Amino acid sequence: MMNTITSSKVPVVELPSGEVLSLKVIDIVGKKKGPMCYLQASVHGAEHQGNAVIYQLLKYLEKNEIAGSIRLVPMANPIALNNKIGTYTHGRFNSNTGDNWNRLYHDFTKDNDQVLEFAKKYLGYDELDIDKQYKLLLSKLIEDKKNENSNYGIDRNGHVNILLQELAHNADYVLDLHTGPVATRYLYVPEYLEEKCADLQFPHNLIIPNNFAGAMDEASFMPWINLQRAFKELGRDYDIAFEAYTVELGSEERISLEEAQLDLRHILHYLFLRGIVTEEDNPITTTIKKCKLKDYKTYYAPRGALYEYMVQPGQAVKKGEVLAVALNFENHFKEEEIKIELRANQDCIVINHYPSSSVPSGAELFQVMESIY
Amino acid sequence: MMNTITSSKVPVVELPSGEVLSLKVIDIVGKKKGPMCYLQASVHGAEHQGNAVIYQLLKYLEKNEIAGSIRLVPMANPIALNNKIGTYTHGRFNSNTGDNWNRLYHDFTKDNDQVLEFAKKYLGYDELDIDKQYKLLLSKLIEDKKNENSNYGIDRNGHVNILLQELAHNADYVLDLHTGPVATRYLYVPEYLEEKCADLQFPHNLIIPNNFAGAMDEASFMPWINLQRAFKELGRDYDIAFEAYTVELGSEERISLEEAQLDLRHILHYLFLRGIVTEEDNPITTTIKKCKLKDYKTYYAPRGALYEYMVQPGQAVKKGEVLAVALNFENHFKEEEIKIELRANQDCIVINHYPSSSVPSGAELFQVMESIY
Amino acid sequence: MMNTITSSKVPVVELPSGEVLSLKVIDIVGKKKGPMCYLQASVHGAEHQGNAVIYQLLKYLEKNEIAGSIRLVPMANPIALNNKIGTYTHGRFNSNTGDNWNRLYHDFTKDNDQVLEFAKKYLGYDELDIDKQYKLLLSKLIEDKKNENSNYGIDRNGHVNILLQELAHNADYVLDLHTGPVATRYLYVPEYLEEKCADLQFPHNLIIPNNFAGAMDEASFMPWINLQRAFKELGRDYDIAFEAYTVELGSEERISLEEAQLDLRHILHYLFLRGIVTEEDNPITTTIKKCKLKDYKTYYAPRGALYEYMVQPGQAVKKGEVLAVALNFENHFKEEEIKIELRANQDCIVINHYPSSSVPSGAELFQVMESIY
Amino acid sequence: MMNTITSSKVPVVELPSGEVLSLKVIDIVGKKKGPMCYLQASVHGAEHQGNAVIYQLLKYLEKNEIAGSIRLVPMANPIALNNKIGTYTHGRFNSNTGDNWNRLYHDFTKDNDQVLEFAKKYLGYDELDIDKQYKLLLSKLIEDKKNENSNYGIDRNGHVNILLQELAHNADYVLDLHTGPVATRYLYVPEYLEEKCADLQFPHNLIIPNNFAGAMDEASFMPWINLQRAFKELGRDYDIAFEAYTVELGSEERISLEEAQLDLRHILHYLFLRGIVTEEDNPITTTIKKCKLKDYKTYYAPRGALYEYMVQPGQAVKKGEVLAVALNFENHFKEEEIKIELRANQDCIVINHYPSSSVPSGAELFQVMESIY
Repeated sequence: MMNTITSSKVPVVELPSGEVLSLKVIDIVGKKKGPMCYLQASVHGAEHQGNAVIYQLLKYLEKNEIAGSIRLVPMANPIALNNKIGTYTHGRFNSNTGDNWNRLYHDFTKDNDQVLEFAKKYLGYDELDIDKQYKLLLSKLIEDKKNENSNYGIDRNGHVNILLQELAHNADYVLDLHTGPVATRYLYVPEYLEEKCADLQFPHNLIIPNNFAGAMDEASFMPWINLQRAFKELGRDYDIAFEAYTVELGSEERISLEEAQLDLRHILHYLFLRGIVTEEDNPITTTIKKCKLKDYKTYYAPRGALYEYMVQPGQAVKKGEVLAVALNFENHFKEEEIKIELRANQDCIVINHYPSSSVPSGAELFQVMESIY
Repeated sequence: MMNTITSSKVPVVELPSGEVLSLKVIDIVGKKKGPMCYLQASVHGAEHQGNAVIYQLLKYLEKNEIAGSIRLVPMANPIALNNKIGTYTHGRFNSNTGDNWNRLYHDFTKDNDQVLEFAKKYLGYDELDIDKQYKLLLSKLIEDKKNENSNYGIDRNGHVNILLQELAHNADYVLDLHTGPVATRYLYVPEYLEEKCADLQFPHNLIIPNNFAGAMDEASFMPWINLQRAFKELGRDYDIAFEAYTVELGSEERISLEEAQLDLRHILHYLFLRGIVTEEDNPITTTIKKCKLKDYKTYYAPRGALYEYMVQPGQAVKKGEVLAVALNFENHFKEEEIKIELRANQDCIVINHYPSSSVPSGAELFQVMESIY
Repeated sequence: MMNTITSSKVPVVELPSGEVLSLKVIDIVGKKKGPMCYLQASVHGAEHQGNAVIYQLLKYLEKNEIAGSIRLVPMANPIALNNKIGTYTHGRFNSNTGDNWNRLYHDFTKDNDQVLEFAKKYLGYDELDIDKQYKLLLSKLIEDKKNENSNYGIDRNGHVNILLQELAHNADYVLDLHTGPVATRYLYVPEYLEEKCADLQFPHNLIIPNNFAGAMDEASFMPWINLQRAFKELGRDYDIAFEAYTVELGSEERISLEEAQLDLRHILHYLFLRGIVTEEDNPITTTIKKCKLKDYKTYYAPRGALYEYMVQPGQAVKKGEVLAVALNFENHFKEEEIKIELRANQDCIVINHYPSSSVPSGAELFQVMESIY
Repeated sequence: MMNTITSSKVPVVELPSGEVLSLKVIDIVGKKKGPMCYLQASVHGAEHQGNAVIYQLLKYLEKNEIAGSIRLVPMANPIALNNKIGTYTHGRFNSNTGDNWNRLYHDFTKDNDQVLEFAKKYLGYDELDIDKQYKLLLSKLIEDKKNENSNYGIDRNGHVNILLQELAHNADYVLDLHTGPVATRYLYVPEYLEEKCADLQFPHNLIIPNNFAGAMDEASFMPWINLQRAFKELGRDYDIAFEAYTVELGSEERISLEEAQLDLRHILHYLFLRGIVTEEDNPITTTIKKCKLKDYKTYYAPRGALYEYMVQPGQAVKKGEVLAVALNFENHFKEEEIKIELRANQDCIVINHYPSSSVPSGAELFQVMESIY
């Protein structure tokens, strides 16, 4: 007796040459009932490590029984993944519209009367029934969104996003696997999940507001936040069981199957605590550090120059320590020192940095966590 | 006795090689007092015709006296203008962050207590005094915005925009010169200026809400809308003298000095009606058509294919007429017709279309005006 | 009794996401025997008009009997055709290696002993037999080339090219359909075909040496030139029946089915004269102008500026006439005239120009024919 | 008594916005006479480490006397260095013409009668006199090349190259500082310098023919090879004192000032042996491995997939060992293993690999040295 594994494809785009790129969906269903976890990787086309984790998870699931189900969508944005210019992947933005692929999800429950009506109708139901019925409503709302204006054609900007939302709509847990440019491992955690996020045992946790700014995690949890608000108006305290995280797995443009084994342990630990994975030998533990989004600071390049990054992502830096040095040979012609230094304004942990030494003034050089707790 | 013409530069970015790109500002001041008009071109780096118009206007101003002043900023985004990939200009988005350069302006008066305090303080003043004092406040607010977080460096994303807002803050009239991809000539007009826009005598006028969505026209008029709202709360009906338009001058990646002469006549006519240009021989007249933003529809490519655009921008199309035909040779392998047709859902005027025949499914193929009045 | 039409696919590349792009090959075989003509389009991915011509030719061939056969390869470089950056197609160079896709064909007969051996063996044969046998040798040499070093993998740089050479190896006539940037219609004609090229009735004809520089036309005719040379060494004057032309069909990034009808008349006229098309109602005639490659001159942009092209491709220009005007606003800061003019050094016909108004110094601005005969 | 340091600029290109990018030339002249060494970095715009070495060398030269002179050209291709698309630098090819910037140098002595005349004239002179006079001829030939066709404007494709050749023409030693994509440190050494290259003490040395293929090292030494050949025809054995190397300093898109200190020791050792640097404390030594260009093999990606590189540049690999593993999720839909392996065909040392995990089939995955001696 083992899990059932099935696969299917969802067309995303037809290229000018007529070939079609598709989402590759792999569903693993255990014999026993249980919740559903949804994982996707590479919505930003250069962020590949999540695919290695999905591969290792699939290998695990071929041999280990689960309760409930897991849906895997590796290479969740083939348009972006294939968008090579030179040897690098330009997968962050829709190259046609400029929009960040992870800001193009849809918020179809905001100020939506159907949510309030739903809350009224199910006000006295228990939470399991509510969740089940609400997923049916979400399915309908996504379908409505897809049909909106469809006689003018489908807007490619956001199309892959609604397809992914549709694939995830039935999930209880959504893990959107990303990476930074050159980065450490960290989580984006909505405020309402601040207590639960420790179950993933990630070292760095960025606590973001329960708001919608276009990302998959937000698009996934906002329907539940909005439902909670609707119940609140009606006087019921509804407890959100649903969870969604953006999971940052290091640096872009690389994979490591060995690191993926370690990443997998975090995810298996989480899935074990959620009752999908049924056994765990060797639970992972980490020291967990958090900071609020308002304390997640960006250092912009003070000069156009060639930069050397003097600290590694994940490293703690004291106020006044050197973050980067840079060479600007125009300085030599102005009788200034060629070498420039950038120092930390405050104690911080460096989360990521720009992936090239060649930097124009004003580019995002470092992102750091301050006021860590 | 003639106009005074002075020039200055404002640094925008330091390149990795150390060279600096600057804004080129040309100020023309008449002997007689009068209002100030601000014109900029090429914030989207591929949209060049505005520079030809600025050139023709400068030639005019070298020979013709004005009252008040005119500020010209040609090539207002040198980062974007120089961003060539192959032979084309990739100037619509910040290639580092993906953001549309004309969605990166700052809205520093929204919910700003200083605006309400200002309204209280100047409640009883006449409108000329109010406008003069308010521009001083705007200058201060822009300065505050620039200093915000500045010890983390200046964010290149939006930096050129605040510099342009600063250069324009003193203006009474702002004309932001753009073009479409392959496009006709048209105006973006905020609702509060719907009556006045005829003074530019543009054939097509798109009426947009008095809201902020990041563009220069909006960033320029919103401080005045917000002031009006503050006065309204205090019981005064304040009449906005300030005007801002996005002026769309045909197609990108080209200039025509001859067409610029015609474009100039529209602008001189407008400046004459506003009292800056002092003589006009040959006023221009056009049939003026308008539509609401909600009736400005986009046709997305129904298929990936090679498209032929069967209608020219500016052309009226009846429901059911062919907008485009396309060739998809994969169809031949599916025993379908290679040739595909796209027809109009409604009567419309085509405003612009995609600039290449090679189109993936879901790209913005046409933008059209419907329900024209 | 009609032509037989069959279709097949040849895989070219596997994308990082795993999807495969393929060549789409359409073969039309007449009931009567006759020669074979091979046509391909869009090896440069932004050059689309050839596909419209292939479409019209296919429509013609569905209704009109031929003798011999025609092989059509529309969208002959799907990698390049799909390579969109923003709204434009970057299809001229392999974006990974920088190489011009039409300089990557293979010259496998140069200094090849097997050609000399072939010439010795078939020295006394008649030309039809020679041609038939030589095509078998070409097939073998292409196969050898493909297998060379293949245990190190297939070099993507040149892979689509050898596949196309393989598809064309059996042809008697090869037409490689291209376009310029903004261009008129013209032919590349090798010296040995200067007399015959009039059969295509193209207005402008550029006579190139019988040499190999990497292009499809050269790669197609050089085996025959090399065979002729081998026979010459052995004392036989061998007459080359084989023909290959690069056919330039106007401007890139557009198609016109109506213009394709006219282009088709040129090709049908040629195919009629070669005995493949069997009837012709309305033969096309043009005034034919030629120039040598050494008289095909490039004007490089003398300044970085915004250019207006004052002459249309196909237009004759007298020495001293204005080719372009340009706006450089830095000039204003150096107290120089903003407007710059570029004039013709010699009488010429403009063949093509740069497709954008925004031009750095030193870019190819115009290509012109001088010393026309 | 110390070295004299002077600086100058050479304009390279005028951008469309009118700003000019220049070469930054720094000349260090010792009090004592001696030879001249020329160093340049970043002709490929993403290859930055050479600039860090030039910086460290300049610091050294500010404090340590030399005999003769050193010319430094950091950021020797500002067009390429500034060519950012997204966060990466697209500096390998002229983005307008597709040409590799290090294949665009000029070979003006090949089959040039003036070289033969020179050899005749100076047949009996001693080598120092010959070298001095020949550099005057080179200067003239470069000047002639620059003036060729100049009334049609300057071709940007190759313009920076001839400017660099002009700056280097007087040198006795030319070091062209590059990097690979992800790479170890190695030298390109022409056959005639195989004995001398050990003076740079680089671990890996690729021995290339004494031929011209467009690169700076070749463009620098070919005039001397051609002079040697001319003397040979006249019966004199002329010994080439001139040396040129392409020096590969690790990976692109990064600098390390600490590694630059080590790189500097190689260069100072070389300059000490050539009599320019006058003291050396701590000479560097390495085990020197060589291979012929014909044994420098490229592995092309056998599949489109996400790759993990299992060996580091510089690492020795045995035949049959795994070079890379790759994930192809389409395989899962074909009932094949998702994971693919690539193994070494022969024993080799890995010199560089592709810088991204996302790879289309046929891309250059690894370059390796085989048959090392």
